[in-house]
Order: sequence, then C-alpha cells, then structure tokens
Amino acid sequence: MAKLAQLIDNDVFRAYATYTTIVLLKMMLMSLLTAYFRITRKAFVNPEDTASFGKGENAKKYLRTDQDVERVRRGHLNDLENIVPFLGIGLLYALSGPELYSALLHFRIFVGSRIFHTFAYMIPLPQPSRGLSWVAGYAVTISMAYKVLKTSLYL
Amino acid sequence: MAKLAQLIDNDVFRAYATYTTIVLLKMMLMSLLTAYFRITRKAFVNPEDTASFGKGENAKKYLRTDQDVERVRRGHLNDLENIVPFLGIGLLYALSGPELYSALLHFRIFVGSRIFHTFAYMIPLPQPSRGLSWVAGYAVTISMAYKVLKTSLYL
Amino acid sequence: MAKLAQLIDNDVFRAYATYTTIVLLKMMLMSLLTAYFRITRKAFVNPEDTASFGKGENAKKYLRTDQDVERVRRGHLNDLENIVPFLGIGLLYALSGPELYSALLHFRIFVGSRIFHTFAYMIPLPQPSRGLSWVAGYAVTISMAYKVLKTSLYL
Repeated sequence: MAKLAQLIDNDVFRAYATYTTIVLLKMMLMSLLTAYFRITRKAFVNPEDTASFGKGENAKKYLRTDQDVERVRRGHLNDLENIVPFLGIGLLYALSGPELYSALLHFRIFVGSRIFHTFAYMIPLPQPSRGLSWVAGYAVTISMAYKVLKTSLYL
Repeated sequence: MAKLAQLIDNDVFRAYATYTTIVLLKMMLMSLLTAYFRITRKAFVNPEDTASFGKGENAKKYLRTDQDVERVRRGHLNDLENIVPFLGIGLLYALSGPELYSALLHFRIFVGSRIFHTFAYMIPLPQPSRGLSWVAGYAVTISMAYKVLKTSLYL
Repeated sequence: MAKLAQLIDNDVFRAYATYTTIVLLKMMLMSLLTAYFRITRKAFVNPEDTASFGKGENAKKYLRTDQDVERVRRGHLNDLENIVPFLGIGLLYALSGPELYSALLHFRIFVGSRIFHTFAYMIPLPQPSRGLSWVAGYAVTISMAYKVLKTSLYL
C-alpha cells in the first residue's frame, strides 16, 4: 500500500486524478440531460419506456426523435470521442514525469475546453465557438501524446 | 519490475483488475451480439457486407435497419457511456487507498448493475428494471468520484 | 517521483504507452476525417454549422446525411467500441508482468489490426478484410484479458 500511496501523493498524478474525475463527471451529466429531454419532450426510442403512457397507439406516438434529444446525444458522443483519448494519453503523460505547471496547464485547458464545448453545443452558440473549443482540447491531447512518445517510445 | 508486481499484488488493485476486465469483456460481447443479429435478421449497413448475397437489387434489399439490431447497438452505446467513466474513476479510486470491503462493494454493484442492465435491455424487461439498474451503476461511480476528489483534490 | 519514473522505465509499460498512444491518435484522426467529409460533401447536422452558407432555405439544404460521412462515423464508433477495452485490459495486462516479447506481440497485432481495419472500412476493401482485421484485434484483447484474470483474479 505504501507504493500506491506514493502514486496518489505525487502532485502531477493528483492533478490528473482531479481533472479526469471532473471531466468524466461532466460527461456523465450528458446522460441525465438526455433523460431530462426525453421525458420533457416525450420522445423515446424503446417501446417499454412508453408503457406508462398507456397502451397501443396512445403510447406509440411517443416513439419519435426530437431535435433537442438528438443534440444532447451528439454532444455526449463527441465527449466520448475526445475524453477517451484524454483518459489514456493523459494517464501516460502524468506518468512520463512532466513539470507540474506544464501538466496543470494541459489538464486545465482540456477540461475547460470540454466544459465550454458543452455550453457551445447545448445553447447553441454561433460557430466557430464549438469548433474552436473542440480544437483546443484536441491540440492539448496531441501535445501530451508528443511528450509521451518522446519520453517512452518503445516500438 | 518489483514495483509493478507490488501494484498488481495489492488486493484492492487486483479486485479492480478483475471487475474491470469482466465488465469490459461483457461490453465486448455486445459486438458479437450485433453481428449475430445482423446475420440472422439479414440487416446490414455497408454495401460490401451484402456482396455474398448476390449483386444489384438482390443484395440491396439487405441494406436496412432492424429493430433487434438497433436495440443491441443502443445497449452497446449505453455501455460505453457508463463503463468509460468506471474505467477512469475506478482506477483512480483503487489508487486512492479505499478499504478493501468498500472497494469490493463498489466494484460488485457496478458490474452487477451493468450485467442486469444488459438483460433488462435485451429481453426486454418492463421498466423501471433497466432504469434502476442504470441508476445503481451511475450512483456507484459518483460515490467513487467523491472518494477520489476527497483524497486527491489538486486544482 | 522515483517510483513513477520506475513505472515508465519498465519496458513492457513503455511499449504499452507507445502503442496505446499511437492507436488513440489514430482514433482521433477519425474526427478530422469526419470534419473533412462534412465540409467537402457539404453535409451537416447542426443548423449553426451551416450559417456561413447563408440564411433560410439556402443553408437548410446542407442539413443532410452523406454516405461517406456516415461511413467514417461508423468507423469511429467501431474504434471506440474496440479501443476502450484495449485501453483498460491492456493497462492491466502490462501491469500483470508479461514477458516483453509476448506483450509486444499483443500490442503490435492489436494496433496493426486497427490500422488495417480503418483502411478496409474507408476504401472500402471487399469483405472479409474488415471482418478479419476486427477479429484479430478482438482475439488479442481476449488473450490479454485471460492473462489478467489468471494473474490477478480477486472476486
């Protein structure tokens, strides 16, 4: 256990743990948002989900797509596509011995960009707000990947 | 190597390794299930996948969506949306020094809830079976995230 | 920091770091490819993305699905479904003390299979090219999962 404690006591690793947990919790919020819009817009996809609205045609009319629900789902998928690389590359980056201020800079920009991306997508803000916030998170991940490969390349 | 061996010898970490591997294997099963339904229902999406059924119109009629295939695909995406947070937050939680019985409780509820969720989605069971199993896994992940942030917050 | 350096100095772990970073960067390329096809095919899904094409009906006609865009998106989702298990199971495998040549074999086949899978999907090559490359990556992940469970099973 002593060795494990040393890992979590390392400042860079603690920063990684903090920012990763925050951005994953943010991603999990998208599930609640989807449920909220499905219920308020009465737009479901599984027949068993509409059973409480009655039987037959009365329930069937709630099996439909809704623009707000689809928008949240696209935001959720975009999170998955970008946060999964951060999860893996960020962990390896944190273990590659970066300077603390450099690691904090990377983590803060990434998490900030994903939170801004969510607002830009959900409100929605006019482009290129969403595009630029996506680029910021993408660039930070590439930068961390470069550091990982420079430190530990072993093909 | 000695240090690595100590990591995998730690009981909490071994439990994390075991339950994570099981739940990821369960998620991978969804790919096989999708393939099974695509083949038995003859419902494909890529033209090159129907080439063995002949040419022209004869093959084209198999480029269609099928309710069972779509249901499995939704279950698979739901797995991704929930197991990715578990993968990251669970790892950080395992490294944050929890009591073994507490860690086992978290991991067992999460993996149990995802297995039950799959059955509830695929059979399908009447609601709120699927909804409640989703909530159980979600709540466990939040609880682990709270422990991680309490132990290692570094903003 | 000494303990962290030991982790990243371990050859198996360095190989894991290298191959994971490469395959995650490959997955991230799918986002750029999607953007490329959306722009060249003028096929968007969010109204705010077409605002630069003018107002009203003129912009609305670009809110459509395009076969090439959908193909890239399916390839991207297939990456997520397969690379997420590799990310988690591969990490645990790297920590379970495998022989270096065995670990390299697993990582190389997985990353090679996913790169080939992308070409097979995007060109597209006739089946079973895509199917077989998917099976190779899947089988390698199962093999690593078996090693993890054999080494560290703790239920």
